[in-house]
Amino acid sequence: MKPPAIVERYRSEIDTELEAVINGRTFPMYDMMRYHLGWVDDRGNPVRKNGGKALRPSLCLFSCEAVGGDYHKALPAAAAIELVHNFSLIHDDIQDGDNERRHRPTVWAVWGKAQAINAGTAMRILANTSLARLHNFGVSAQTLWSVNQRLDEVTLSLIEGQYLDISFEDRFNITVTDYIDMIKGKTGALISGSMELGAFLGSEDENIVRSFREIGMNIGLAFQIKDDMLGIWGNSETTGKPSGNDIRRRKKSFPVVWMLENVNGTRRKEVMSIYRNETVNDEAVDRVLEIFNHAGVESGSRQLVENYCRKAEHLFFDLHLGLQAEKDMKEIIRFFNDRNY
Amino acid sequence: MKPPAIVERYRSEIDTELEAVINGRTFPMYDMMRYHLGWVDDRGNPVRKNGGKALRPSLCLFSCEAVGGDYHKALPAAAAIELVHNFSLIHDDIQDGDNERRHRPTVWAVWGKAQAINAGTAMRILANTSLARLHNFGVSAQTLWSVNQRLDEVTLSLIEGQYLDISFEDRFNITVTDYIDMIKGKTGALISGSMELGAFLGSEDENIVRSFREIGMNIGLAFQIKDDMLGIWGNSETTGKPSGNDIRRRKKSFPVVWMLENVNGTRRKEVMSIYRNETVNDEAVDRVLEIFNHAGVESGSRQLVENYCRKAEHLFFDLHLGLQAEKDMKEIIRFFNDRNY
Repeated sequence: MKPPAIVERYRSEIDTELEAVINGRTFPMYDMMRYHLGWVDDRGNPVRKNGGKALRPSLCLFSCEAVGGDYHKALPAAAAIELVHNFSLIHDDIQDGDNERRHRPTVWAVWGKAQAINAGTAMRILANTSLARLHNFGVSAQTLWSVNQRLDEVTLSLIEGQYLDISFEDRFNITVTDYIDMIKGKTGALISGSMELGAFLGSEDENIVRSFREIGMNIGLAFQIKDDMLGIWGNSETTGKPSGNDIRRRKKSFPVVWMLENVNGTRRKEVMSIYRNETVNDEAVDRVLEIFNHAGVESGSRQLVENYCRKAEHLFFDLHLGLQAEKDMKEIIRFFNDRNY
Repeated sequence: MKPPAIVERYRSEIDTELEAVINGRTFPMYDMMRYHLGWVDDRGNPVRKNGGKALRPSLCLFSCEAVGGDYHKALPAAAAIELVHNFSLIHDDIQDGDNERRHRPTVWAVWGKAQAINAGTAMRILANTSLARLHNFGVSAQTLWSVNQRLDEVTLSLIEGQYLDISFEDRFNITVTDYIDMIKGKTGALISGSMELGAFLGSEDENIVRSFREIGMNIGLAFQIKDDMLGIWGNSETTGKPSGNDIRRRKKSFPVVWMLENVNGTRRKEVMSIYRNETVNDEAVDRVLEIFNHAGVESGSRQLVENYCRKAEHLFFDLHLGLQAEKDMKEIIRFFNDRNY
């Protein structure tokens, strides 16, 4: 399935904005950022661009336009958001010890963990400095400072979510509520912030801005639960990861948390004992999948994704922002709900 | 020898400001920050405060006062600077694998590297959010944003210096110029920024602000070279580290860089071959010390520290800021020049 139209619509302008922020910096550390973003290889030579979908900055620009603003004004904020997202990926790969992302070695796998910590933190700082470009669009110092503060608070929430996610590794008493609190930070905060900041730069109506924040949080939660589902039932050809991968890695992702809360008795004990082992073989993966299947974990997860998507849709349609915005939003929600990669 | 009077003078107000920034946050990750700052033990229980000297924030407040400003106005900036300094220590300890700091286990040694990355980055973000408190002192949004931008640029320089420092580990062709460029980032930028931002919040005279930036850079460079000297010739009772420690760790600190540039022949080869080994025993440490002694490395290093201190003093006295400021500055420079811990 195709990503929503907004991804294609704003793509080249987001790239141009990001390049304007990073490409003036020649110090070698910035090559690590260009590498991570998929612009150059590990020697600094240009490659055919191969970054992510830039979903978050697209949502930011869409939100600005949907509330009646000129989306160009939100470009520096959109670029900053993409930098925050990518800083978190660079650090996340170090923390998880992941060797590969988007079919290439991760930054730490090329340059070592010490330098990857530097590149990640510096990318996060660049997100702030890049906001200075809002001045070019006549944004006042007061507004600029508000955007900056919001981006900082969102980043703190993101790091807190990351902290919780890591702390879950040693725990089995995680409830669905604990899990939702964790992803509100890890994933929800930045998607929510993307839509909130876009709306903030396009409208002075505080109620609208608050609604966009809530809409973003709802699709953000849907996004992460869907991501967890794809980590278990995803098709390896579309996701690039083997099926059942997150079971093999014993990740405390949504399906297992849901199961531990909703299933009792021997099946629950069996899954816990598998997740307590150092390694999980193919047979054990299949056994967990069988137990998930028997307990209806997939449909339980899908139900929650749908609930969050429906909530976001209602909030959005209550604002009566016009046909074009509603058509775009429907596509966005369909993507968040149905995506298979 | 005692630290300069400014350290004692502003101490309690800096602590109060830092507490106001961090203590409202109850999420467990912030306990890691309180631990690092020496406020609590690893279970979160209060201990007798045991942080650093808070030299940088003191320099910030002193600079504000020296140019005729009310130093209270600079308190949020001073606290932010101390947070930037401590974020860099938390990450530095991970990068160097150091287990101990200020006679206690480092943050990563207690909570693991993954969570220490989170706590360090979050502390750096808090430095930005804490600047919002400048509003309480009637600082305009424009000034606030300028301070924020400057703190971000200083942080990028600091991280670039850290990047260079790590990249030196595998290199022997480091000149004194390369080394000075590295410490301009790693150490100079933040001490320079401390004095610049203090002056900026106390005076609108751009020339004065620029001078303070340069004064700070000069004492910052003196500070780091002195630090490197103490890592080799320091008394273990005052520094808390064994003599010759940085030789044992094969650190590319100033004395060895100076020697590699100023000494030729067999002695140079001998030192290089010792630094190329995986480990350095006591005998080898003594041999390096002997070669340093023969080549006059200690007096060569001391000379450079004195030069930077004299430069800073001249720049400061050219501004004619009055007797009290000059007396304080003399004490500061004497400390940077003569300290033995």
